[in-house]
Amino acid sequence: MAVGQCNFPNMPKVAGIALGTTCAGIKQTIRDDILVVQMPAQASCAAVFTQNAFCAAPVQIAKANLLHQPRWLLVNSGNANAGTGIQGLQDAQACCAELAKIAGGLNQQVLPFSTGVIGMPLPVAKMTAAFPAAIKNLDEANWANAARAIMTTDTFPKGVTKTFDLDGQPITINGISKGAGMIQPNMATLLAFIATDAIIDQALLQTCLAAAVEQSFNLISVDGDTSTNDSCVLMASGCSAAPKITPDSDAYTIFAAAILDVCKQLAEAIIRDGEGATKLIRIHVQEALTDEEAVRVGKTIAHSPLVKTAFFASDPNWGRILAAVGRAGIENLVLENVQIYLNSVCIVKNGGRADDYNEEAGQQVMDQEEITVTVKLGRGLAAQEVLTCDLSYDYVKINAEYRT
Amino acid sequence: MAVGQCNFPNMPKVAGIALGTTCAGIKQTIRDDILVVQMPAQASCAAVFTQNAFCAAPVQIAKANLLHQPRWLLVNSGNANAGTGIQGLQDAQACCAELAKIAGGLNQQVLPFSTGVIGMPLPVAKMTAAFPAAIKNLDEANWANAARAIMTTDTFPKGVTKTFDLDGQPITINGISKGAGMIQPNMATLLAFIATDAIIDQALLQTCLAAAVEQSFNLISVDGDTSTNDSCVLMASGCSAAPKITPDSDAYTIFAAAILDVCKQLAEAIIRDGEGATKLIRIHVQEALTDEEAVRVGKTIAHSPLVKTAFFASDPNWGRILAAVGRAGIENLVLENVQIYLNSVCIVKNGGRADDYNEEAGQQVMDQEEITVTVKLGRGLAAQEVLTCDLSYDYVKINAEYRT
Repeated sequence: MAVGQCNFPNMPKVAGIALGTTCAGIKQTIRDDILVVQMPAQASCAAVFTQNAFCAAPVQIAKANLLHQPRWLLVNSGNANAGTGIQGLQDAQACCAELAKIAGGLNQQVLPFSTGVIGMPLPVAKMTAAFPAAIKNLDEANWANAARAIMTTDTFPKGVTKTFDLDGQPITINGISKGAGMIQPNMATLLAFIATDAIIDQALLQTCLAAAVEQSFNLISVDGDTSTNDSCVLMASGCSAAPKITPDSDAYTIFAAAILDVCKQLAEAIIRDGEGATKLIRIHVQEALTDEEAVRVGKTIAHSPLVKTAFFASDPNWGRILAAVGRAGIENLVLENVQIYLNSVCIVKNGGRADDYNEEAGQQVMDQEEITVTVKLGRGLAAQEVLTCDLSYDYVKINAEYRT
Repeated sequence: MAVGQCNFPNMPKVAGIALGTTCAGIKQTIRDDILVVQMPAQASCAAVFTQNAFCAAPVQIAKANLLHQPRWLLVNSGNANAGTGIQGLQDAQACCAELAKIAGGLNQQVLPFSTGVIGMPLPVAKMTAAFPAAIKNLDEANWANAARAIMTTDTFPKGVTKTFDLDGQPITINGISKGAGMIQPNMATLLAFIATDAIIDQALLQTCLAAAVEQSFNLISVDGDTSTNDSCVLMASGCSAAPKITPDSDAYTIFAAAILDVCKQLAEAIIRDGEGATKLIRIHVQEALTDEEAVRVGKTIAHSPLVKTAFFASDPNWGRILAAVGRAGIENLVLENVQIYLNSVCIVKNGGRADDYNEEAGQQVMDQEEITVTVKLGRGLAAQEVLTCDLSYDYVKINAEYRT
């Protein structure tokens, strides 16, 4: 299931970025489960990672290797190499070393990423045996295959592309992501890879990515569970003919906006593909004192199983939204100032059901596949948007049967 | 569905406390939905209420009336009178006034409580028409009927009784509770009424109740949603022949322990009857720096939809428990010191799967109906226990179809 149309776009090449996939047979199903991404020597690479204290072995290694001018990303699906202790670190290192040997680089130039079941040993032999094929398949036109190779419970591959001009020279940004469950990213989401041909220093690229992730991946939630493996990488190959992007320039403003837009679209695709999702819910929290407060209210609504099951049932049971706002822990909230809307239908005003609200109007909104909940707190000017999906039988089914 | 044996006990009378139920027809089903509890003039009454900012109209009135030497509790099921604005307050007041008139007391001596659908106007006329019958039915032997009259999605009535001696004179404590969904009580849970014949001042009774609730109802969670109507009342009729219970006395220690035990049993009954629950999960968090930290870890596990669906599937997917511990926001957590057990089976040690763990041992625990998860944080001496249940298809079904 997925909410709305989610066609994979025609993705152009990003000069200098080559992608190769292959099947190592990590899970029983015969499908590509290995992705190698190669960057040119002059590329800059930025990344943000999960804040989960139990971060997975590949995350620990990728964090360290990010400082060593990375040339390759090595991604596998089907096994998260998380909760695997020292063995997990050794396994991830062994994979990096083998890939570096075949590709002709240094171990530290490989950033490893894993996604799949937690707590199972990484099948190192199977994986390394597949590396030559992945390297052989490296191709700048391989974005669609790459998006497919990183999927786990995803039902469709997720990609976004964007092109714009700087000084009359085109710059391309491509991004792919995966993720459907264990989604409440904190600083990054479970595997998003974005590449551009722009010329930009690593430090500025990192600033750009961190800001974009904060306003995109960090504002979505399927189930409130922050993964052990969340990672988002932004590569800049430096192959564009456009001038170098420098801090505080107009070019940076344009570039940063484009990156944010790509991140937002990739994040939304993850929610559309939320495990068991039948509805996309945009929660706009407005008139908050601070951004943090707005996010807190938005996430409390997004995590409420009662709100989510009501959306699944298309039941305008707005009392559950109101109860969620009430338990968000906002100090000195004046109930009489709070307003709640379903799309443009005002449902809560003056601490209770709006006088002119009628159930038919609410029902009409709830019957739709994409719904906007607007909460006006009546306290200030801050506003934030949190994206989530509903909670259906299929969420339970998918997660109860995940390992069978 | 309910986890384990949940027979309603033979509840003795509590001298001075009379209970009367009747059917006002608030919902279509023909069943008692009104409960009136009467206390003698010399009784003390303590109560704690939800911390949800949108607290329901009856909660607001009960809080205020608690200061006026209450004589009656007026409880209805089927309608929460929450999110009903000024009309809701007027409706609750009208009910209190009518009951006081019939019973021969003052409006302020009535504490109102409502549970059921949020956001619908209270059917005042239906309710007040039923009050004479409820008053006529007042009887000290009516505990089982009372426990039934306050049920909503509960599948069984919940009651606990306890008797002990003070100075050779018996003291009885009876408690009833309801609740199955929207359960993450904060300071109290959705409707628990406890009565004793002990002689004790209101202030001390309030201290005793607040402490007991903190260690019982506030440590359970079905779905993480804190209700707008949570209330827990402790009445002391003062009719026992035992001496008055005074602060810092041995008698108080014994009494407080008995109240805590009653609260814990009532809270556990709510989790056993959690919406759609097939399993009871006791989460013991040990070796924490502080109680607060232990509760935080326990609740993060208890609220994880991924952990809860794994329990539903009887799948020893311990990686999800580990991921939940990791995202609980504990600063400077040393992963290598964390240990996780399923009953007595060690599953996580040294940051990964325990060496001697095998899936069969984990499966054997998971197949049971009652499971203890023990998390040792390796940081200190604080320990807390949080109770929760699994997340099943039926939780989604019950909450998707709640208003149909």
